[in-house]
Amino acid sequence: MQSEAQRFFSEEEQQVLEDILLHRRDIRGNHFKSDLISGDNITKILQAGLSTPSAGFSQPWEFVMIHDVETKKAIKASFLEENETAKSLFLDDKQQQYTSLKLEGITKSPLNIAVFYTSKEEPVLGRTSMPDMGKCSVVCAIQNMWLMARSLNIGVEWVSILDPEKIKTILNVPKDNQLIGYLCFGYTDKFYNKPELEIKKWDYKKLKYEVVIQEKY
Amino acid sequence: MQSEAQRFFSEEEQQVLEDILLHRRDIRGNHFKSDLISGDNITKILQAGLSTPSAGFSQPWEFVMIHDVETKKAIKASFLEENETAKSLFLDDKQQQYTSLKLEGITKSPLNIAVFYTSKEEPVLGRTSMPDMGKCSVVCAIQNMWLMARSLNIGVEWVSILDPEKIKTILNVPKDNQLIGYLCFGYTDKFYNKPELEIKKWDYKKLKYEVVIQEKY
Repeated sequence: MQSEAQRFFSEEEQQVLEDILLHRRDIRGNHFKSDLISGDNITKILQAGLSTPSAGFSQPWEFVMIHDVETKKAIKASFLEENETAKSLFLDDKQQQYTSLKLEGITKSPLNIAVFYTSKEEPVLGRTSMPDMGKCSVVCAIQNMWLMARSLNIGVEWVSILDPEKIKTILNVPKDNQLIGYLCFGYTDKFYNKPELEIKKWDYKKLKYEVVIQEKY
Repeated sequence: MQSEAQRFFSEEEQQVLEDILLHRRDIRGNHFKSDLISGDNITKILQAGLSTPSAGFSQPWEFVMIHDVETKKAIKASFLEENETAKSLFLDDKQQQYTSLKLEGITKSPLNIAVFYTSKEEPVLGRTSMPDMGKCSVVCAIQNMWLMARSLNIGVEWVSILDPEKIKTILNVPKDNQLIGYLCFGYTDKFYNKPELEIKKWDYKKLKYEVVIQEKY
């Protein structure tokens, strides 16, 4: 850790980040290995979350570290229920394809981390006009953890097909906290070269000109 | 760019990411320099955003690239208005401290990027139970861009003291799009060693034991 003065990054270092960004993937259940993640690596992943700047330096995050198999099974039950409902929303071919996808690795992953937003009564700098900024800070922390895991060659899956209120009940979460992300961590036999949903033609990769606007719409 | 097979990152590469995370800062107006950002670097920053995985591969982001001074001035007017209201929410010493902070560099930054979430009518994989997942994907893209900028030794400021509806009017934004982040990019004479709000004792740095919970609350 270098904390003195201005850190200047070289082209090679910039390229390392580019590689990490390009090779980060959402890992699914069939690709998680059971190998445990060392305490040192868990610390690095958490430190990545804790070094995320937040609106008004509010650091509105809490991380629940879940190893317990019974807890994971209860979480997975919520996934199965929500996924049944989700399936019914897609039609015809899309439904068939949806059903064929493996969308969670909750019990296969050795470490799950549930990430919560903790709200505050008093006004927070930077959140007075856009109150969702607090939640945005928590999402930034998740992204930092995801990248750190990838640099440690550890896969991450963000599971969102869950009922947040059920997850809160399972984890005894204080009522004012809000579930932002449920993450599964684990070593993997496969980081796809492209997003799995691109490879499987669920959707196409948008091109730059489709999403970049010059000056004004 | 390496796109073949599994990319394995070394300890040195992991350390580079750690350094980038630790040295990323929110840059304020008084520290932006007027030097332009090259087209190559703008492309790298955008590519970092575009390489962000998104729930259901929905890629629900749009980026408005703002160089025009008149547009920046209009945006800044919204900041000034919102900031007056914000000031009044803090009391006594806190208000005095709030007033002393420089919270935007909109017109000093050579490049502003407004980042929008574009919603969809049809159901999206991964967003059926937690509909905010689309917005989370956009926040992840912002975080990727922020890190890429830092690795290029370019500072970023996320300005949130803005009225999102006014910003949409200024930029002629379609009504279903939602402002997620308004970012100012620029070279800087100073990346603080710690978050500015920590240095100035606006709030204290939370410790790991305060935000990490084992298994359950």
